[in-house]
Amino acid sequence: MKKLYVAGIGPGDARNMTAACREAIEDCDVMVGYSKYVELVAPLFPDKRILDTPMTREVERCRMALELACRGETVAMICSGDAGVYGMAGLICELAAEYEPVEIEVVAGVTAALAGAAVLGAPLTHDFAVISLSDLLTPWEVIERRLEHAAAADFCLALYNPSSRSRHDYLEKACAILRRHKPAQTVCGLVRNIGRAGQSDAILTLEELSQTSVDMFTTVFIGSSQTRIIGGRMVTPRGYRLD
Amino acid sequence: MKKLYVAGIGPGDARNMTAACREAIEDCDVMVGYSKYVELVAPLFPDKRILDTPMTREVERCRMALELACRGETVAMICSGDAGVYGMAGLICELAAEYEPVEIEVVAGVTAALAGAAVLGAPLTHDFAVISLSDLLTPWEVIERRLEHAAAADFCLALYNPSSRSRHDYLEKACAILRRHKPAQTVCGLVRNIGRAGQSDAILTLEELSQTSVDMFTTVFIGSSQTRIIGGRMVTPRGYRLD
Repeated sequence: MKKLYVAGIGPGDARNMTAACREAIEDCDVMVGYSKYVELVAPLFPDKRILDTPMTREVERCRMALELACRGETVAMICSGDAGVYGMAGLICELAAEYEPVEIEVVAGVTAALAGAAVLGAPLTHDFAVISLSDLLTPWEVIERRLEHAAAADFCLALYNPSSRSRHDYLEKACAILRRHKPAQTVCGLVRNIGRAGQSDAILTLEELSQTSVDMFTTVFIGSSQTRIIGGRMVTPRGYRLD
Repeated sequence: MKKLYVAGIGPGDARNMTAACREAIEDCDVMVGYSKYVELVAPLFPDKRILDTPMTREVERCRMALELACRGETVAMICSGDAGVYGMAGLICELAAEYEPVEIEVVAGVTAALAGAAVLGAPLTHDFAVISLSDLLTPWEVIERRLEHAAAADFCLALYNPSSRSRHDYLEKACAILRRHKPAQTVCGLVRNIGRAGQSDAILTLEELSQTSVDMFTTVFIGSSQTRIIGGRMVTPRGYRLD
């Protein structure tokens, strides 16, 4: 049967890519993806045919991948991080119903929450929630409600898409909601350009975070009431007795 | 400086392991871990020295790894899934303060929420929460509060440790809490032995899930109000317009 991989490449460097993702790309006739992510992996597969599209063309990109697969090509649709976390796996599954049967294999990858957590220490060692602050596809009221409940339940949080040119104050708004339940001194972290050139990170308080400018390449971490700074790292202890 | 890797091997098969994890194990003098996880990767590194401990000896295992590193050995402490999600990264960071300085590198991996989601389709394409139902280290009231808020905020959920010999009714109890906010027909999924021999999965309703027996090798997925079955897969659409 015609085959379409939807594969998460991890945060960007070859080191965080799984063997299964590498095999999927090696196996494919053509790699499809958002140009910025394709650029990250293309050097690893110099002979691979590539079709890339700009960022906001997700439906077009997925249709292109499905059409190629229907024509008999083995296709790897690549996503940054994990294919299933704000990635293209959902859209491919939705659209596939309109096409002739194609074997779809979703290949999991290391999403920014996990890769960024490893940079900071161990902020997500206990229960956590992942929320995107982008309201392009989700009403802001839904995002606000999720922030509110996640804070009330004392989850650790990983926030994706914390900012963009048109949403420069969204992180500040999110922090204000979290502050209703979390103290100003809550331990937070930032990782920018995870696994890419110029990676940087910082640990700061929730109060400081609310006054910090971030860009769309940053993943934000909010601690629970248990999260502490230990040896310069952001750590959420799971509760083991240390004797 | 003395070096200690805390590396997530992914769900169990070599295919879901990252290159960075493989390099960490190749680089180490000795691999330390829970015997069940060590068994999964040991065949890939036949010449590697191994120290394994039983499941409930987490503090002992981490101390052993730190002591070996302090003696000058390069150590890889391996965890299943991601080292930072209910893994040993947090405990290593906590305990490291008691030892002489050791360079600690946390190596992220594909946690069961991501690997299981890929098996089912794309259940976690939108905001989600990860909750462990184990009350060995967390009071059940905290778990209950997190389930309640996660359901009220319409998160998708990945539930870890949904059962054990002494907690056979915990998933049923969790489902009863979720039912206060989520309809009986909410799309749910199960994946057992992800990436291991005998992997199996099922898609079912929340009502059916509450009457289903699971074991500790199962990861449970609860849909949001948007989650649907599309082409036999569990999918949470992100909200793209399909034209």
